[in-house]
Amino acid sequence: MSRKDVIAGPRNEEGIATVLGLLKQRFGERFQTGLSFREQHAHTTTYLPAQLPDGVVFVESADEVQAVVKACAEHKVPMVPFGVGTSLEAQVNAAHGGISIDFSRMDKVLEVNAEDLDCTVQPGVTREALNTYLRDTGLFFPIDPGANATIGGMASTRASGTNAVRYGTMKDNVLALTVVTANGEEIRTARRARKSSAGYDLTRLFVGAEGTLGVITSVTLRLQGIPEKIGGGICQFADVKAACDAVIMTIQLGIPVARIELLDAMQVRACNAYSNLTLPEKPTLFLEFHGTEQTVAMQSEQFAEIAREYGAENLRFTSDPEERAQMWKARHNAYWAGRALAPHLNGLSTDVCVPISRLADCLAQTQADIAETGLLAPIVGHVGDGNFHVLILFDDKDGADVDKVEAFLTRLNARALAMDGTCTGEHGVGQGKMSYLEAELGGALDVMRQVKRALDPDNLFNPGKIFRL
Amino acid sequence: MSRKDVIAGPRNEEGIATVLGLLKQRFGERFQTGLSFREQHAHTTTYLPAQLPDGVVFVESADEVQAVVKACAEHKVPMVPFGVGTSLEAQVNAAHGGISIDFSRMDKVLEVNAEDLDCTVQPGVTREALNTYLRDTGLFFPIDPGANATIGGMASTRASGTNAVRYGTMKDNVLALTVVTANGEEIRTARRARKSSAGYDLTRLFVGAEGTLGVITSVTLRLQGIPEKIGGGICQFADVKAACDAVIMTIQLGIPVARIELLDAMQVRACNAYSNLTLPEKPTLFLEFHGTEQTVAMQSEQFAEIAREYGAENLRFTSDPEERAQMWKARHNAYWAGRALAPHLNGLSTDVCVPISRLADCLAQTQADIAETGLLAPIVGHVGDGNFHVLILFDDKDGADVDKVEAFLTRLNARALAMDGTCTGEHGVGQGKMSYLEAELGGALDVMRQVKRALDPDNLFNPGKIFRL
Repeated sequence: MSRKDVIAGPRNEEGIATVLGLLKQRFGERFQTGLSFREQHAHTTTYLPAQLPDGVVFVESADEVQAVVKACAEHKVPMVPFGVGTSLEAQVNAAHGGISIDFSRMDKVLEVNAEDLDCTVQPGVTREALNTYLRDTGLFFPIDPGANATIGGMASTRASGTNAVRYGTMKDNVLALTVVTANGEEIRTARRARKSSAGYDLTRLFVGAEGTLGVITSVTLRLQGIPEKIGGGICQFADVKAACDAVIMTIQLGIPVARIELLDAMQVRACNAYSNLTLPEKPTLFLEFHGTEQTVAMQSEQFAEIAREYGAENLRFTSDPEERAQMWKARHNAYWAGRALAPHLNGLSTDVCVPISRLADCLAQTQADIAETGLLAPIVGHVGDGNFHVLILFDDKDGADVDKVEAFLTRLNARALAMDGTCTGEHGVGQGKMSYLEAELGGALDVMRQVKRALDPDNLFNPGKIFRL
Repeated sequence: MSRKDVIAGPRNEEGIATVLGLLKQRFGERFQTGLSFREQHAHTTTYLPAQLPDGVVFVESADEVQAVVKACAEHKVPMVPFGVGTSLEAQVNAAHGGISIDFSRMDKVLEVNAEDLDCTVQPGVTREALNTYLRDTGLFFPIDPGANATIGGMASTRASGTNAVRYGTMKDNVLALTVVTANGEEIRTARRARKSSAGYDLTRLFVGAEGTLGVITSVTLRLQGIPEKIGGGICQFADVKAACDAVIMTIQLGIPVARIELLDAMQVRACNAYSNLTLPEKPTLFLEFHGTEQTVAMQSEQFAEIAREYGAENLRFTSDPEERAQMWKARHNAYWAGRALAPHLNGLSTDVCVPISRLADCLAQTQADIAETGLLAPIVGHVGDGNFHVLILFDDKDGADVDKVEAFLTRLNARALAMDGTCTGEHGVGQGKMSYLEAELGGALDVMRQVKRALDPDNLFNPGKIFRL
């Protein structure tokens, strides 16, 4: 974090008043300025204080997005795209006020090209809705950040999650976008071909830009065939280091695990309580293997050999869909399970990602730091990617507690950077990680600023995020 | 192509004269202005006329690149990075004159992190040299565009090639870059973590920018474990459509082929003559499978079933390394084999890429068009990606022949665009495809221009490429 990164930017009161009038006139009931709407649209799964927009417009088409952008651009009013509000770094805060553009009504799957393994969706489609829609096609969209986020939001934060070790992140799974740019025009960043060298990679420029360069109006995604066979696995280890070493060996040997997730002992305890499980309260790996009957069996056996070498206990494989579903539901609920350990406290999820060879060290040092600092902080990790989250439970009203947490975060991020890692594997920068990003990328931020100024000269697209201009 | 895209831009004679003096003073024998050096650095594997740089500097370090960029920036002199000159769209032409920055002396592997499956190299390392260097680590770098290109050049054109169907393109395999920007500073675009949401994806902005946004000084690459087992396969089909249908089915069923390459009958004839082979002169698929003994056997069997369904003949699998090497050498030499069909003519390789479901149609229509137009034009294709190349052999001194070729190209690119494909799967735009790119991406080009102007306000980095400013 750093609370100092949460800037309340300059407000263009006159422009805002004008646009409120214009949008009310055009959108009627689909434009709301009531406090509850505004509060709900600045709600984020973050400890950071909310910054409310001045109004919320429920758009239904790309044409309407263009109209909103043109009105806001003319009157120099900021715009903040809103999916379902599951971002963790206050990406939806209206730091300079302005209009929240709500995509919940742009939730249509526009096109599925099953034979090309791709589809095009409106930004408000959630990943669960998409997978329900796709079920009969034999295809699925693999990116799974846990939360039932929208595809537009996932593209904007370059989300990933449990399946990324096998299927990559949003960067790898978005084929093309349509985007409304600062002049209100809609562009298409690429064609539907699987690969292309057709000029600058605008698709990947907008993926991960957190809404600061334009407003996404559709997303073309790669899809995967539903595996013939899915196998699950679970096991415990004596300590986090042994679990990590097993993961490192699995990745280095190229075993194509679909998911390989670590929960530390405290997180297992939290999940047991929250999801009614009885797992041994030790560092635990959850695994998933995708393939055919034969390849899943082979991968499971290969992993078992490695796991045993590192002292795995209670190693258990299952291909029972219900048992797997229960296991992954527990994993998906890890954030809320963690929060439930101390419902009166706020929660902050860190997101460092390091080269895989440094993972065990980084995790072990971080656990020691948590203990020394005296934090209540369970850990979960997409360890196959070198990415883990510390969920710090703390009292955000208590200055001393906040200082302690900030000092811990500074150490954690410095540790990851010293290992050539990043401060954010998948949550994005938002307002909470600006200072860490500065340390991480230095002069590269100037290039980002040049791009931002070129594409959004009036700083109207989600201002106050990623970096200080 | 379009010859009209080859613009000889404005020359800043005074600045060029000054920089020639400065570089001579600083680099001595490592700065050359002789005609043969200048000609060699405007040599491209393309039909387009050469545009010579005014001097060639053989840099040895990032510091030296910075010095060159600073001198050129101060005196407003264009710079064109040069690897080994295997690009196909005149990317190394000095359209506005200026300095060619030759990377042949920046050919060191800087670091191999075997346990993280990555390495960092200077831009002048060729892919073959890298794989020779890596041999003892059990790792390899999979991207293989055929030519023994440099890693810097491959990054700049977003190259791919025969292995892309399994391992992706340069976009997927570059983890980070260092780049000297317009002010002469060197930035690093990302850390070594496998995934990141740390701000704009500058890595992928520079990958595929064809040297127009900055000068790459190092490339951090993902590596792969050398497969335990590699199997090769080859078979013939009655026509290109049947071969394509087999490919489409293979991809749709998710069989993880490592390579699946099509040669049409004329290309097979050319390869037989050039590489001393005796393959039946029919549409032919070359395949490669990577995995374990078991998975390679499984994949081969799955493919065999599909191939037989589409009437494959002479289906043959081999795991003999020599036989495989001979087969792939023939494939890699396809360009030169094609050229040898008519050594007195020039050659132009097209590069459309379409969604896989449209591939058979696109190829069949293109073959019919070739026949109707009366062109000598063998076809090879990275068909697993929907990408194929028509090597058009023509007399570039004969206006009527050039007109005929231009009309064919217009039809071919329009055909691919109508199928939601791209004019370039892997060769890039350079000077030859500007007009097709305009048709392909329309308004998105304005966004590219904004980025270009922001990062290179004086238009000194490889001017006259990708789009008209």
